[in-house]
Amino acid sequence: MKPALPELHPVSGLRLGTACAGIKQANRPDLVVIELCEHSTVAAVFTRNAFCAAPVTVARQHLTQTLPRFLLINTGNANAGTGQQGLADAQTCCDAVAETAGCAREQVLPFSTGVIGEALPIEPLCAGVPAAIAALAEDGWTQAASGILTTDTVPKGASRQLQIDGRTVTVTGIAKGSGMIRPDMATMLAYVATDASLPSELLQTCLDTAVAGSFNRISVDGDTSTNDACLLMATGRSDIVVGDADSEAFAALCDAVSDVCEQLALAIVRDGEGATKLITVEVSEGRDEAECLQVAYTIAHSPLVKTAFFASDPNWGRILAAVGRAGVTELDLDAVRLYLDDVCLVRHGGRDPDYREQAGQAVMDRDEIIVRVMLARGEAYARVWTCDLSYDYVRINAEYRT
Amino acid sequence: MKPALPELHPVSGLRLGTACAGIKQANRPDLVVIELCEHSTVAAVFTRNAFCAAPVTVARQHLTQTLPRFLLINTGNANAGTGQQGLADAQTCCDAVAETAGCAREQVLPFSTGVIGEALPIEPLCAGVPAAIAALAEDGWTQAASGILTTDTVPKGASRQLQIDGRTVTVTGIAKGSGMIRPDMATMLAYVATDASLPSELLQTCLDTAVAGSFNRISVDGDTSTNDACLLMATGRSDIVVGDADSEAFAALCDAVSDVCEQLALAIVRDGEGATKLITVEVSEGRDEAECLQVAYTIAHSPLVKTAFFASDPNWGRILAAVGRAGVTELDLDAVRLYLDDVCLVRHGGRDPDYREQAGQAVMDRDEIIVRVMLARGEAYARVWTCDLSYDYVRINAEYRT
Repeated sequence: MKPALPELHPVSGLRLGTACAGIKQANRPDLVVIELCEHSTVAAVFTRNAFCAAPVTVARQHLTQTLPRFLLINTGNANAGTGQQGLADAQTCCDAVAETAGCAREQVLPFSTGVIGEALPIEPLCAGVPAAIAALAEDGWTQAASGILTTDTVPKGASRQLQIDGRTVTVTGIAKGSGMIRPDMATMLAYVATDASLPSELLQTCLDTAVAGSFNRISVDGDTSTNDACLLMATGRSDIVVGDADSEAFAALCDAVSDVCEQLALAIVRDGEGATKLITVEVSEGRDEAECLQVAYTIAHSPLVKTAFFASDPNWGRILAAVGRAGVTELDLDAVRLYLDDVCLVRHGGRDPDYREQAGQAVMDRDEIIVRVMLARGEAYARVWTCDLSYDYVRINAEYRT
Repeated sequence: MKPALPELHPVSGLRLGTACAGIKQANRPDLVVIELCEHSTVAAVFTRNAFCAAPVTVARQHLTQTLPRFLLINTGNANAGTGQQGLADAQTCCDAVAETAGCAREQVLPFSTGVIGEALPIEPLCAGVPAAIAALAEDGWTQAASGILTTDTVPKGASRQLQIDGRTVTVTGIAKGSGMIRPDMATMLAYVATDASLPSELLQTCLDTAVAGSFNRISVDGDTSTNDACLLMATGRSDIVVGDADSEAFAALCDAVSDVCEQLALAIVRDGEGATKLITVEVSEGRDEAECLQVAYTIAHSPLVKTAFFASDPNWGRILAAVGRAGVTELDLDAVRLYLDDVCLVRHGGRDPDYREQAGQAVMDRDEIIVRVMLARGEAYARVWTCDLSYDYVRINAEYRT
């Protein structure tokens, strides 16, 4: 269910350093600094939650001012719901990096994840910055993958190498996220980098495409967090310049970035709070992608469907009830078909006469299950990923602050 | 937390009979017949789920054909997702009542609640009809309140008497529902009756108003069921005729019906699957009711908020994060205030400087809690009710079919 961290190829021009600052707990890696070489470009996607955290506001602002040279990421505290003091604290953290590294405050982007509504403990945080900077190394990805976690149970990373013009280009990324996960980003941080060289606009296009098909297609509990961010950084150190949106090189790089983002997104769902199963929901034969997504998310967000998966119960009635309330107009329920993996459960508005509970049960006993709904009204398709709802989800979220 | 069933005043002209038909379990009341005297009028609201159950389709159809004389309600099986056979089975049940009672099939309305996707056991069901009809009595409300339950832990009823033109008019109702509860009706059945005389259109107006402020304002898990129905019946036996929509008598009767519906709706939330707390979410100072509702439901549907309530954790950050992602445009988060009962937790985008965790904790330890959000952008207001999300919710829904 939860694969080990794969090999993470270093990205030339980017170094990572991790430290134990004691922000919430002692002796736990909780502070990560990422250093970008000069002339690196950066693209970013942030939470759409109107109640966004102070570091999100500050990072957005700094990005408009200059090219970043450092990222500072802390766990244990989200610095969200902290008002004016939170904004000042986020700037103070940037200052700590700027002073130690000798750059401008605006060249530092802050990121925080953890509990909402408590003041950021800036003293231990700032005191930890020199250690994180001293630890900077191109092979620091694995430690950083652990250093950004909160309720995650495993570190998450993915890495691809591809050939462009006969040279090797690397794309490597790490991510964190476990609860509060839903489309439009969540309590999720993801940092992906490449050693190709891309202008900022192309890099943003590449990131937007990758996020749309990965991080924005996962749902653990339907909640959107205040702190999500996903960054794509290009150091240019491979000397491969990708400057044309219509080039094969750009297409190939986009594929690699999308692939890395999809691997990270799936790792987040697999590690969803209390998750025991990875559920892929595929809705096809819709009139447009929007209605397919609507149906897919209604299924993916349904607590009744999710508890049925936890119980390994092929309760197709709950799935069909979710389809029925998804708000698709003029839906002909009698034409809808429903499969679990390759087993047809429903056709003509009811149980498929050939369906045997044993076959549905066999699918349900698996760790990874595909729910396939055919709407029988068009050619459109959409896919989202979610997990089941277990006792442990309740336990983790009931005990979170204690 | 769960009050005992109050006294349910009989409604002259309406009789109820309950039987143990052994539909899913032996020796459990699972079949209810309600008989209406001649010339009774009936108003109805049904589920908006496109995947509606066979009895909903049949009941809707019969209502267009003639005035009903009998209602037949079974638990243990929802007759949903059962295709053409389900429609035929629903008609067969109506025939069983029609034959025993000597009326037309179209004068019978069928209702089913229970597991989805299994064929209705019509043999025991039809065999139980004569016993239910033999048991018909005007004081049969209490037994009927138990006879319509599924995962409910307590029967639910409410009753009011009012004076119109110096005479006593009675409004009495029963309801069932525990899981799969959300706006636009849910796995919920409610039967409310009065001995006043009202034309069908006025009765429908009265019901629509009452439902909008009660059953359509509650949420247990965000799922809408396939079988919901709410009926308002007027026997006319009190000889009080309410024929004018602008009359004081109509206003008074509507108030009584709304009151009964609100009591029933609250009883459903209090008995929400696994619920340990009743949460009222009040959103005020919105630009219009729609955005207030949007915010209120986003809070009420959030699993993170609901588990925090289960843990008695005043985690206002989760509530504020829900406000932030509710999709209200141009929301000024710095102006939003958040209270738990009378304790102010948030103002100016962060924790109220006067807030003490102890005060929030004291509210959280209560069984009934009001979450009050002030949006600071208008005069509109909306209120919804929900409950917390506990281990038992997962247990009940994971074990439902086993």
